[in-house]
Amino acid sequence: MLESAYNSPLLEGAVAELSKLPGIGRKTALRLALHLLRQPEDAATSLGEAVIAMRKGVKYCRRCHNISDSELCEICGNPARDGETVCVVETVKDVITVEATHEHRGLYHVLGGLISPLDGIGPSDLEIDSLVERVKQEGITEVILALSPTMEGDTTGYYIFRRLQPTGAKVTMLARGVSIGSDLEYTDELTLGRSILNRIPFTDSPE
Amino acid sequence: MLESAYNSPLLEGAVAELSKLPGIGRKTALRLALHLLRQPEDAATSLGEAVIAMRKGVKYCRRCHNISDSELCEICGNPARDGETVCVVETVKDVITVEATHEHRGLYHVLGGLISPLDGIGPSDLEIDSLVERVKQEGITEVILALSPTMEGDTTGYYIFRRLQPTGAKVTMLARGVSIGSDLEYTDELTLGRSILNRIPFTDSPE
Repeated sequence: MLESAYNSPLLEGAVAELSKLPGIGRKTALRLALHLLRQPEDAATSLGEAVIAMRKGVKYCRRCHNISDSELCEICGNPARDGETVCVVETVKDVITVEATHEHRGLYHVLGGLISPLDGIGPSDLEIDSLVERVKQEGITEVILALSPTMEGDTTGYYIFRRLQPTGAKVTMLARGVSIGSDLEYTDELTLGRSILNRIPFTDSPE
Repeated sequence: MLESAYNSPLLEGAVAELSKLPGIGRKTALRLALHLLRQPEDAATSLGEAVIAMRKGVKYCRRCHNISDSELCEICGNPARDGETVCVVETVKDVITVEATHEHRGLYHVLGGLISPLDGIGPSDLEIDSLVERVKQEGITEVILALSPTMEGDTTGYYIFRRLQPTGAKVTMLARGVSIGSDLEYTDELTLGRSILNRIPFTDSPE
């Protein structure tokens, strides 16, 4: 055929780029591109420039490895945060998730992954040495392991626990039990069984 | 709070722009942005530039009002297409949809919408005058109305039919009937009833 499928190589190009994004196929990409064509030119320019500026400008905090626009991230640079408590998470996204709870007022440490021998990821591929170093240097008294309750999360947690034992810092992990608001009927047996073993005193004013 | 929700105004900016796209909420936008951060810098740059270039560069064909990278679109500029048959569609997307069938080898005419008094869209808001002009000037012998089988589509089709009657051009519309591959059980009664009234001779070699 002489002509391209969309009659415009420029549209083709935008659709091709948009459809590289995860979860966006060619049909959705075409819908997004045609939407942008109907908007004022500013809309497409702002989107394009924001994406480029983000990728060029975002750095990783040299202390906690969270994303940051500067050398030290906003959380590490905030004197109001509790510098003695560090929450260890797998990814940058987990920082956002934990922050959204407003229950952690300490600092973070982003591992960049979990130990997974099947995927060839060992402790040296993660920010574990730097965590141990921070605990020693910064007078951190508690390390909260906020890792996924999976095989990889447990393995990584146990490895970090062993590495931190000599430092004397307290190592804690997320409580495990039934999800608030969920139906007991749909809670898996393992979680329910553990929740019975680790039952807690009844209180009429939930924290 | 001192810090922004994502700890990075640059990430915030990209998420804000991405979530303006239709069907993309803040959670999806964040997922897309974090995906781009994990990719090589080229990926974000290509995406951003493709979107900007598309919006800046895409024009509308002065003849058929389809999108085009030049004054005349690739279809109008292709001498192999049948210049005597014009397929009238609502939007640019419909051109892509009809092209994908490979059954139309003529030209197109994009109306830019359908007559819809409730939305305040009248004939003068659409490219109908220019269609009538084309039929008169270009020796078009058949106008195929490929409009949605809705109230608005039918109204627009009837209006165009009346406007084209003086030109002597043949005006046709898409066949209506049961969808190929669909179950009779799920065909609506109106369509099924019309399909019985407008039944066609049985053939053992479907075209």
